[in-house]
Amino acid sequence: MIVQKEIRLKPKTRGFHLITSEIMAALPKLPQMGIIHIFIQHTSAGITINENADPSVRVDFETVFNKLIPENDPDYIHIFEGSDDMPAHLKSALLGTSISIPIKNERLALGTWQGIYLGEFRENASERRLVCTIYA
Amino acid sequence: MIVQKEIRLKPKTRGFHLITSEIMAALPKLPQMGIIHIFIQHTSAGITINENADPSVRVDFETVFNKLIPENDPDYIHIFEGSDDMPAHLKSALLGTSISIPIKNERLALGTWQGIYLGEFRENASERRLVCTIYA
Amino acid sequence: MIVQKEIRLKPKTRGFHLITSEIMAALPKLPQMGIIHIFIQHTSAGITINENADPSVRVDFETVFNKLIPENDPDYIHIFEGSDDMPAHLKSALLGTSISIPIKNERLALGTWQGIYLGEFRENASERRLVCTIYA
Repeated sequence: MIVQKEIRLKPKTRGFHLITSEIMAALPKLPQMGIIHIFIQHTSAGITINENADPSVRVDFETVFNKLIPENDPDYIHIFEGSDDMPAHLKSALLGTSISIPIKNERLALGTWQGIYLGEFRENASERRLVCTIYA
Repeated sequence: MIVQKEIRLKPKTRGFHLITSEIMAALPKLPQMGIIHIFIQHTSAGITINENADPSVRVDFETVFNKLIPENDPDYIHIFEGSDDMPAHLKSALLGTSISIPIKNERLALGTWQGIYLGEFRENASERRLVCTIYA
Repeated sequence: MIVQKEIRLKPKTRGFHLITSEIMAALPKLPQMGIIHIFIQHTSAGITINENADPSVRVDFETVFNKLIPENDPDYIHIFEGSDDMPAHLKSALLGTSISIPIKNERLALGTWQGIYLGEFRENASERRLVCTIYA
């Protein structure tokens, strides 16, 4: 059994956002056992799994990603879409563009402290499209 | 066909560890063809695939991850769980929290030099829970 | 339904390469709906999804990955296979060794600007083996 569902995430400010609830609200009933694959159709945002409890973790993620991949590096040659554009592509590659999560007992088998993060790397992003594929 | 199996990895020291054998010993017989998805239910450890032969590679991984994501950065605001905690969350995101490996002829279709790594990013970690989902 | 297909990518120069067409040309007809998992059987190259239009993005990826993971760091101890070898293992871990892409209407459900990248991290690489698993 395979089910596919497209989700449009509301526009977010630049930074890291916990989106577990926004995704769950858009999904159909999950199967007893299986996997969900969540894929983001963009190259200037990313998706990962991390700490779900303390918002300061997401602030530190933004701080550190900006240090790892600085803007306005004079060596960049892809610069015509703004100073946040090339760093956004690189951050997307480091964070990843899809996640797969096991499903158990009709629920995501996340650990106690795990949630789904969107890394929004553009200053003025529109909504972001996800393709969710559930197989069981 | 989907089979799910939870594994508890014995506690490991901080650093990178080759865990292919520990995982294989806990899995049921693999199907003729398929995929295995291995998911770690933690946000301060990660899982990836890398070089399986020379232990010095794992030492260099620890060295470089500590340079990429230094401890005690004065800009961190999530600091109340110890100096290794926020770096652990970031390293987990860079390394990844799950891997998928093709199965062929009842074996993992890894390359000759590939093995499964656990990145343990906490100083005093307990056992780590994996959820393995095999589909065929 | 599961189909598995091995692909040999022609040898590439060090750097980032758009390989969507080379992969598609080697795949069988895709199903109506499903997932494709593409796995690279090497530890000194990586695979990811990123911007498909402007070649300067791939040039900047090479520039930045060389800054993130420098060669000839005196702290490396795994040095006997050349100055590009240990950095290649680390870059492979950061970029990732597999991707999963949803399939919809017999096509990869990539975003408009998404393509598949090979990150080739060795100076004189041979062909690279991919294992593609399609399930529907």
